[in-house]
Amino acid sequence: MSPAKPAIDFYFEFSSPYGYIASQLVDGFEQRVGRPVTWRPFLLGPVFKLTGQPPLIDIPIKGEYARHDFARSARLYKVPYTHPEKFPIGTVAAMRAFYWTHDRDAAQAKALAKALYQAYFAQGQDISAAPAVIEIAKGLGIDATALAAGLEDPAVKDRAKREVEAAIAARVFGSPFFIVDGEPFWGVDRMGMAEEWIKSGGW
Amino acid sequence: MSPAKPAIDFYFEFSSPYGYIASQLVDGFEQRVGRPVTWRPFLLGPVFKLTGQPPLIDIPIKGEYARHDFARSARLYKVPYTHPEKFPIGTVAAMRAFYWTHDRDAAQAKALAKALYQAYFAQGQDISAAPAVIEIAKGLGIDATALAAGLEDPAVKDRAKREVEAAIAARVFGSPFFIVDGEPFWGVDRMGMAEEWIKSGGW
Repeated sequence: MSPAKPAIDFYFEFSSPYGYIASQLVDGFEQRVGRPVTWRPFLLGPVFKLTGQPPLIDIPIKGEYARHDFARSARLYKVPYTHPEKFPIGTVAAMRAFYWTHDRDAAQAKALAKALYQAYFAQGQDISAAPAVIEIAKGLGIDATALAAGLEDPAVKDRAKREVEAAIAARVFGSPFFIVDGEPFWGVDRMGMAEEWIKSGGW
Repeated sequence: MSPAKPAIDFYFEFSSPYGYIASQLVDGFEQRVGRPVTWRPFLLGPVFKLTGQPPLIDIPIKGEYARHDFARSARLYKVPYTHPEKFPIGTVAAMRAFYWTHDRDAAQAKALAKALYQAYFAQGQDISAAPAVIEIAKGLGIDATALAAGLEDPAVKDRAKREVEAAIAARVFGSPFFIVDGEPFWGVDRMGMAEEWIKSGGW
């Protein structure tokens, strides 16, 4: 993969089932399109405030469909999925842990994102609280004490906040959300369209 | 195609760009899956009241994306598309004309649906008012005087109203919306998934 090729932005929220499914597919996508993917967790809460939308599963009728479709989509893409008992959850600790790790080791941050997602959507773990996030990070060899301090560091909080602001500035309104050379693609079910876009040069 | 195979319900709203795109693709879909498709226009207005959703393009940020995606999706599927000057519009006359025609000739009703959609989304015509709908129907050889009377007939109005209620009872919340043996698929971008579902027997 040529480092000269511009990265594709992959925005996701740790409490998003479709974001989780995308996280399991994006390495294959990256390989096929031959361009690097930048993982960018953000928070849907502030975005929903701007769009005036409630969380998907709180929308009457559509929410029922979504709940059914989470598991159906996971089966289609052959991704293990167990709908979490507590859903949705706050994911600010997970997001901060990601960026704290990312500023030290981008590959490890990606591994952490995958592990957090799997813990929440496949292994029945609640990842909303900092200790749960730290425990999962520790399992990957990340320094638990340093991470715990990092999660309380105002600079780290500010770093994470700026990432949410950047997602909003990029007009991201859902998860997952891909931006390819300024072209936005929303949804795990649009990854094929994004791939087609990249391969064909757009239409 | 065996008449014994149960029909697939295709719900759509005449003011929906994605419904229009689906209407141009659904004959090919019907052929490939080898099952008949029942065309069922409904109104999104009453549905949005139940789900508490504004029209898609009125949602901040997401609405901008949608507007861009209408034309992009049309290009992807090679369907002519010109975003209507007046959008969205009321489509009760179009829906009533469809069901009035359908009760006389189902094939002609389908032809009318396609002609109405093309007039609105490809030829820049406003199809909200009854005279515009009647004019388009006339072009297909439908009796304009009889249709004009039909559109004012309380029995026809009631018939159309019951169809909207049936869509709501079937938990339809968007357009296009397909139901295959009770399994719901929302969106033109899920027609491939629906096809896969039918061909594989589900997963």
